[in-house]
Amino acid sequence: MRGKGINVASAEPGAKPLPKPYLIRTALDAMLADLAEGDPVPAERELAVRFGVARETVRQALHELLVAGRIERRGRGTVVSRPKLTQPLSLKSYTEGAVAMGRTPGRLLVTWETIGATTELASALDVSIGDAVMHLERVLLADDQRIGLESTYLPSARFGGLKTTFDPVTSLYAAIRAGGVEFGSATERIETALASPREAALLESTTAMPMLLLNRRSLDTEGVPIEVVRALYRGDRVAFETLLT
Amino acid sequence: MRGKGINVASAEPGAKPLPKPYLIRTALDAMLADLAEGDPVPAERELAVRFGVARETVRQALHELLVAGRIERRGRGTVVSRPKLTQPLSLKSYTEGAVAMGRTPGRLLVTWETIGATTELASALDVSIGDAVMHLERVLLADDQRIGLESTYLPSARFGGLKTTFDPVTSLYAAIRAGGVEFGSATERIETALASPREAALLESTTAMPMLLLNRRSLDTEGVPIEVVRALYRGDRVAFETLLT
Repeated sequence: MRGKGINVASAEPGAKPLPKPYLIRTALDAMLADLAEGDPVPAERELAVRFGVARETVRQALHELLVAGRIERRGRGTVVSRPKLTQPLSLKSYTEGAVAMGRTPGRLLVTWETIGATTELASALDVSIGDAVMHLERVLLADDQRIGLESTYLPSARFGGLKTTFDPVTSLYAAIRAGGVEFGSATERIETALASPREAALLESTTAMPMLLLNRRSLDTEGVPIEVVRALYRGDRVAFETLLT
Repeated sequence: MRGKGINVASAEPGAKPLPKPYLIRTALDAMLADLAEGDPVPAERELAVRFGVARETVRQALHELLVAGRIERRGRGTVVSRPKLTQPLSLKSYTEGAVAMGRTPGRLLVTWETIGATTELASALDVSIGDAVMHLERVLLADDQRIGLESTYLPSARFGGLKTTFDPVTSLYAAIRAGGVEFGSATERIETALASPREAALLESTTAMPMLLLNRRSLDTEGVPIEVVRALYRGDRVAFETLLT
């Protein structure tokens, strides 16, 4: 079936009919383009009738849109989502990335503790095994939405003073810079992961929703490790962007 | 339960007992560290007995490891996976990234067609709507494993000649460079997505496996668009890495 609004047809003149999952997805894209953020999305059954396809086909397409962050469940219905927060891959903080997108950044403190460095942390932070390491775990907010869960590990010997001066719902990078430490470089690894039940609860998401897992290790301008970060971002609410030259 | 090999305990002296999902995951990590690539992973039931937890707890932990690419199904059993292919975010081609990891890159041609530029493609490639655009769709291989599905769109006016000279199982970037075109910059957007049934089949994966979706637009050194790329990478087999300065 090629209904109205399925605009991809023009891209493949004379091609054989496209498979239904592709057509329904294209039709839904066209429908969403005409709706505004927060508008209700018609029910599965109604869409199946409208596009003349099986409910299962509609269900699969809606699930893809949910994971893609185009739609979201609200109460008992489904509505059009806010666009994803696009985070630049850079040495700038989360705050600066969110503000650049016109969103209000915020944080919720989950954990602030001192632990002994594990083998892995000791190696990454260039400290001895068992040395005191400050662990700060925060939920990242954009406006009122939970978008990520960030665990930061800093050597207490150098950054323990933050315990008395730093307000954990503000930018940690700003506090580190205010202490006279300048970020020089960082390695970042980006992959997919599923949230544990605890992480899913903190992110108000589920253990089935694909997440973006970011592991970062930052060094100062002298090459001395500042931090190790493990951040889990909701895949339906965050995308990363970078300019390669 | 805190069994042998649960090495995280030392990181939190005097802390309250850790939740079971965390302990089982740590125990499994320790167990996997002692196994080699391709080694069989004990059955769910056996692991539940060994670690004294419910089978459902083991099942959830194994599912996380599957999505994380640490283990994979092989026939009726489960084995330890090869480490993920780490792709640097750079202007280099997939080939160069794979070779740097000691893997043999390969490609399978899926689609090679000429289409009319859609509104979106016309804007991204700086051509007119309906202009001929070459679409090349290939499965990316690392050794014998399917790791990604890449769709590249190039303006035919500039690159149509590749139709007679380019071997589609070799590096497209090498062919473009051999034609005297130099890559100057690219914007990349990285997010999560689910594969459509067709994409999942081509990747020998499932529609439930989290994928990394990469959208790239490359320009030459004069700022003229070369290509638009939509690449879907298996989240259990690929990670991206970048150095920020």
